[in-house]
Amino acid sequence: MGWPHLTMATGPGDVTDRTLRDHARQVTYHYDPAFIDFFARTTELAKHAFETANDVVIMQGEVVLGMEAAVASLVGPGDRVLTLISGIYGRWFKTLCDRAGAETNPLEVSPHDAVDPDAVRAALRAHPGVKFLTAVHSEMPSGTLNPVDQIGPIAREFGAISIVDASASVGGEAFHTDAWAVDVAIAGPQKCLGGVPGLSMLSVSPAAWAAMESRPAPLRDSYLSVLDWRESWIARRRFPYTISVSLVYALESVLAQTLDEGLAHRVARHSTIARAARAGVRALGFELWPARDEIAATAITVVRVPDGFPEARVRQDMRDRYGVMVAGGLGEFAGQQIRLGHMATGAHPVKLAAQLAVLERSMANAGVRVSLGAGVSAAMNLLGDWRA
Amino acid sequence: MGWPHLTMATGPGDVTDRTLRDHARQVTYHYDPAFIDFFARTTELAKHAFETANDVVIMQGEVVLGMEAAVASLVGPGDRVLTLISGIYGRWFKTLCDRAGAETNPLEVSPHDAVDPDAVRAALRAHPGVKFLTAVHSEMPSGTLNPVDQIGPIAREFGAISIVDASASVGGEAFHTDAWAVDVAIAGPQKCLGGVPGLSMLSVSPAAWAAMESRPAPLRDSYLSVLDWRESWIARRRFPYTISVSLVYALESVLAQTLDEGLAHRVARHSTIARAARAGVRALGFELWPARDEIAATAITVVRVPDGFPEARVRQDMRDRYGVMVAGGLGEFAGQQIRLGHMATGAHPVKLAAQLAVLERSMANAGVRVSLGAGVSAAMNLLGDWRA
Amino acid sequence: MGWPHLTMATGPGDVTDRTLRDHARQVTYHYDPAFIDFFARTTELAKHAFETANDVVIMQGEVVLGMEAAVASLVGPGDRVLTLISGIYGRWFKTLCDRAGAETNPLEVSPHDAVDPDAVRAALRAHPGVKFLTAVHSEMPSGTLNPVDQIGPIAREFGAISIVDASASVGGEAFHTDAWAVDVAIAGPQKCLGGVPGLSMLSVSPAAWAAMESRPAPLRDSYLSVLDWRESWIARRRFPYTISVSLVYALESVLAQTLDEGLAHRVARHSTIARAARAGVRALGFELWPARDEIAATAITVVRVPDGFPEARVRQDMRDRYGVMVAGGLGEFAGQQIRLGHMATGAHPVKLAAQLAVLERSMANAGVRVSLGAGVSAAMNLLGDWRA
Amino acid sequence: MGWPHLTMATGPGDVTDRTLRDHARQVTYHYDPAFIDFFARTTELAKHAFETANDVVIMQGEVVLGMEAAVASLVGPGDRVLTLISGIYGRWFKTLCDRAGAETNPLEVSPHDAVDPDAVRAALRAHPGVKFLTAVHSEMPSGTLNPVDQIGPIAREFGAISIVDASASVGGEAFHTDAWAVDVAIAGPQKCLGGVPGLSMLSVSPAAWAAMESRPAPLRDSYLSVLDWRESWIARRRFPYTISVSLVYALESVLAQTLDEGLAHRVARHSTIARAARAGVRALGFELWPARDEIAATAITVVRVPDGFPEARVRQDMRDRYGVMVAGGLGEFAGQQIRLGHMATGAHPVKLAAQLAVLERSMANAGVRVSLGAGVSAAMNLLGDWRA
Repeated sequence: MGWPHLTMATGPGDVTDRTLRDHARQVTYHYDPAFIDFFARTTELAKHAFETANDVVIMQGEVVLGMEAAVASLVGPGDRVLTLISGIYGRWFKTLCDRAGAETNPLEVSPHDAVDPDAVRAALRAHPGVKFLTAVHSEMPSGTLNPVDQIGPIAREFGAISIVDASASVGGEAFHTDAWAVDVAIAGPQKCLGGVPGLSMLSVSPAAWAAMESRPAPLRDSYLSVLDWRESWIARRRFPYTISVSLVYALESVLAQTLDEGLAHRVARHSTIARAARAGVRALGFELWPARDEIAATAITVVRVPDGFPEARVRQDMRDRYGVMVAGGLGEFAGQQIRLGHMATGAHPVKLAAQLAVLERSMANAGVRVSLGAGVSAAMNLLGDWRA
Repeated sequence: MGWPHLTMATGPGDVTDRTLRDHARQVTYHYDPAFIDFFARTTELAKHAFETANDVVIMQGEVVLGMEAAVASLVGPGDRVLTLISGIYGRWFKTLCDRAGAETNPLEVSPHDAVDPDAVRAALRAHPGVKFLTAVHSEMPSGTLNPVDQIGPIAREFGAISIVDASASVGGEAFHTDAWAVDVAIAGPQKCLGGVPGLSMLSVSPAAWAAMESRPAPLRDSYLSVLDWRESWIARRRFPYTISVSLVYALESVLAQTLDEGLAHRVARHSTIARAARAGVRALGFELWPARDEIAATAITVVRVPDGFPEARVRQDMRDRYGVMVAGGLGEFAGQQIRLGHMATGAHPVKLAAQLAVLERSMANAGVRVSLGAGVSAAMNLLGDWRA
Repeated sequence: MGWPHLTMATGPGDVTDRTLRDHARQVTYHYDPAFIDFFARTTELAKHAFETANDVVIMQGEVVLGMEAAVASLVGPGDRVLTLISGIYGRWFKTLCDRAGAETNPLEVSPHDAVDPDAVRAALRAHPGVKFLTAVHSEMPSGTLNPVDQIGPIAREFGAISIVDASASVGGEAFHTDAWAVDVAIAGPQKCLGGVPGLSMLSVSPAAWAAMESRPAPLRDSYLSVLDWRESWIARRRFPYTISVSLVYALESVLAQTLDEGLAHRVARHSTIARAARAGVRALGFELWPARDEIAATAITVVRVPDGFPEARVRQDMRDRYGVMVAGGLGEFAGQQIRLGHMATGAHPVKLAAQLAVLERSMANAGVRVSLGAGVSAAMNLLGDWRA
Repeated sequence: MGWPHLTMATGPGDVTDRTLRDHARQVTYHYDPAFIDFFARTTELAKHAFETANDVVIMQGEVVLGMEAAVASLVGPGDRVLTLISGIYGRWFKTLCDRAGAETNPLEVSPHDAVDPDAVRAALRAHPGVKFLTAVHSEMPSGTLNPVDQIGPIAREFGAISIVDASASVGGEAFHTDAWAVDVAIAGPQKCLGGVPGLSMLSVSPAAWAAMESRPAPLRDSYLSVLDWRESWIARRRFPYTISVSLVYALESVLAQTLDEGLAHRVARHSTIARAARAGVRALGFELWPARDEIAATAITVVRVPDGFPEARVRQDMRDRYGVMVAGGLGEFAGQQIRLGHMATGAHPVKLAAQLAVLERSMANAGVRVSLGAGVSAAMNLLGDWRA
């Protein structure tokens, strides 16, 4: 099987020429003074991307490491946690907290929906003493967004430390860590930043640091310890382990490219393409998975395939015949979805048009009645005022 | 102005990831024994791509160097040359021969047409003593093909040494050097081979070598001398000058990729895409520049824009707004054409669909009445049985 | 501070041109079928490099993740563990086991020395019921080697599952996982394999899998879980998280390069250079840190600096003035050592000579009495029969 | 035969990591607006590197193209040319002028020596009406320098247009085009600039342009025509042929790196290393090829091997056994020289020490009596105050 021509899945995917070249800088010793400077600069860029004045820690492992590290470092036995669940990653937070021995209070909505801020407020009222709140901003398995802009301040109002998965947001969806009062935000390079997977970035508020340190047995000397980073890198410019210098090269590159483009421009770009993608798939007769456009993610468009739709066959035809890789449903959603990614380099009319043209063609190849060009037409119709 | 997202012009254009990586191999001394081996292997691959048992010489300079070197090395004052002209490069051969002091007999047809083999035979009969015949296989400024398969054998029958520009053929259009009795074929990496520009490959038959050597004052000690290559590289594994090792890295890579894919498969791929491209542009209301499909090039589709069509504005909108670079008319054809490239990596449904979607969109943006999706639909309609 | 000219530290360091280029292959979706094939092939190559028929799991995180994951997945509260300690990483295993609630029996020797197999046998006799034995093959902070060839079989004889850090061995020092009866061996790409840091490879014997699964509460659903990999990748070709496709590209590349060279050839190459390095530093008046040559590592040469030696100044002069990065002592050994790396691309006369020439020069610059050229001479004297 | 570990020959050779990465930027259409901007910027950088306010033209072909193009564009039948000859390339200028039908007056000195400015003045007095003067600044086959700083003004004084090969100067040896009154200077990327071979840069003074245009039959429509570049690129931002975009990427990169470092710093760096190299080879018993240090090149050190010295065997041992590529004598000097390059990345203590250490070792291997370390010692002795 040859390599794909176009990757439009849920990340990672095609990165820019510049990213690839920066990534291929000669490997160096992680304690080389030039690398120490470089890592410090990368951390500063990450703060800008998170829009935070908090510390940002860069751990080596993709975002699920960041999620687990945050929970393992913060949450202890008996701690009360409000876990907001609108999909698979929201539930994963609960699993992690449960294993940590926490007393979890799940607030769960349908995977087609978003968490209601009023319900969050009500839950925090109903469960006094909640120490942590976990939330996912953009649920990639569902293609939905939760209103973290409102949830963050509510958590803070109730004294709960918020832990938010922003992995599919930073660089493609507005995410204002400090303005939204998010204590711990977690993201990685491989979604809207268009980077190389393998790292987690965690922004950590003073309250979150205090919570880690004030535990009866703070987590130290572990790959999962966020505190180790404070006590090594932040305090002494030492690493708790050998960091992947090359992944840091790539991260610096995509952060710089993102900030060069401008966060607001980039968010608008993703949003415009997402709107065009929704128009495109609707023109092909699909229903969106999210209950309404207002809660649809910008990094990805998830459609609910009709009964009897040859979903696997269509995706396989797209990949085998045309070299276009999109994603199907994850876990419990397998067979029910097609997930069209359009993040980072993919958030562009050229790639959206190509993706839709191939989707249409593969649908026809699989015997689905479809008018070739209909999706492309509907999408491009909204992109007349695009500006590179 | 940022770099483009998609280059679909007349070459060079987007190269594969593998080509870029091979190109970036560490630079070495051209007399390093490893490079000597590498250059020899590259030359062998080139012979396979040309389908020839003749020597192939790799000169440093793009194909116009190869054309000039061939003429300067072969043609002397007073030599009679039949110059076949169906476009700009055919006429260029005449210019070069004229400067060499030759007596040129042009056989010229409309730039929408191809040279008729019967007319070639008639001209050779009418002008006895023709020593050389020059021809262009695929005229990129016109998007046409000349029947070199028939012209080559006719030239040989009359004892004329044929010099053929195959620059837009090798790797995308059938070109059988030996089966077609071509004495000197000239090609470069940057068209259908999908490579990095800067080199010329010349296949040289024994008769052509003899002609170079038997001139009263053979051309030697010059950048234009093909003989220098015989007497240095072929005879002694020495170079007449410092060859660009990096361009050779890239050439070897694209030749290997081409042969791995298979010449026949690659030609079929280009042909299928060209057919779809023609359907696409016709669905948008364009007329082809070539007089008939049988003589249309496979590397490129050239349309004749209607009177009053905002050609420059459309192309500028495609490039500025969507980052898609296509070509306009060259020289005397400026303003009359749009030239859509689809060679090498561009000979693929994904890129054709993207190109057409953006062409449509930019036409609409420029106020041309067009049905968005129509071109994509017509093209994709022919690509249901594509196979990556 | 500019990037270094030559990195001769403890890894990571300069990688080959081929590694960099392979590393820079376009990023793809981790579930792309081409990547699935690629990952499977990489795993097979890793088995060859470990010389094992056991499963090999590739986790995302450098070797300390592998060490922690092995302990967290295997060792439970109350388990008895014999922890062999001849340096910092040996002690780290003990720390990890202690946190897991194990009952640890340390067998510790001086950091200049290696663990005696007879002492291991005696300890296993003295502590019946030892379930696990932890060992470090090559202690990079000390530049020493432990006789795992003998320790592994002894552990097996006593029914103890052996967990061995082979991070500085695979690719540069003989390490025969199966022949030495090692149950869990852990290595990474960035030492003797000459790769890009960020991954751990763990070979897992059937007995080790059984031990993980038979725990009262097997570790699952965690970044630290080795079992997750068995139940996802090995069982179903799924990943427990988004793997860093680019690090896998680089790993495959260095494994292939290592196996192309041949493990035995590569080990001999490292050994020859290490011998020359020892001669070189002795000629400069240094004492080795390891108590005797027989236990000196091949990846690195660690010298004990004399009292009053301006160690930091020498290293800084090497780096700032000449761009040569070597390592100082780690943790408790800071100020007492210079550690000269010579692994992977560094295990070559060209780099050893350069490193020693600069060491000499910087010693002189720092006021140390030294005869310029003496170290180079002693080293090169042993390299007359080198063969590239 | 594997690729070399270290290339220290006469160029091209090892380029920086940054150059390789910049070189590997995605190929684009040469008329892409982004490339047009890029080419214009590259031309400006070249002017800075030449220290000229004249036009600089970038032709595609290595420096011998530039030399031939300069002569073919300027020199016509009957023109009187003073050709200064102190080596192979000086003589090459004469060959080119002779073929152009010029009346050449050679001023020739021994290949160990440099041209005397007083002799130039005398020759110009003796041969009134000299229209052109040709000179080579640094003769790489001899490792010598001619005093172009004095020759240029003398030529101007006599109204002769000077054509100077500065290929081994720019970026490593002081070369002040305008201050030295050089009309046409020719250089390429692959010597002291440390770039990728395949281009020539020509600076052209107004007088030189006038001379090209005022010929009875100015050279146009040829790969050798410098005028074509004036009338296409300079006048209209068009190219006379498809330029190698990738070579331009690499050229821009090395020009930028050179100017970032600073021309003066770079010249001093080369000079210091050349001095150390001379000390090194003398300590090994060699005599320099140049008659005296004052005329020794900075890019390269050429030694005259003693009678009976196994020159070929030593160089082969260096390359085959240790992967170090140096150069032997060119053409008539074959067998009489070893040429040690130390330009661009090679002008560094790390590489000089490595090169000398291997030279010593290979001499010993070939049975030459040599004290290992002696050359390294002598060289490093002069490099105590090096600064990266």
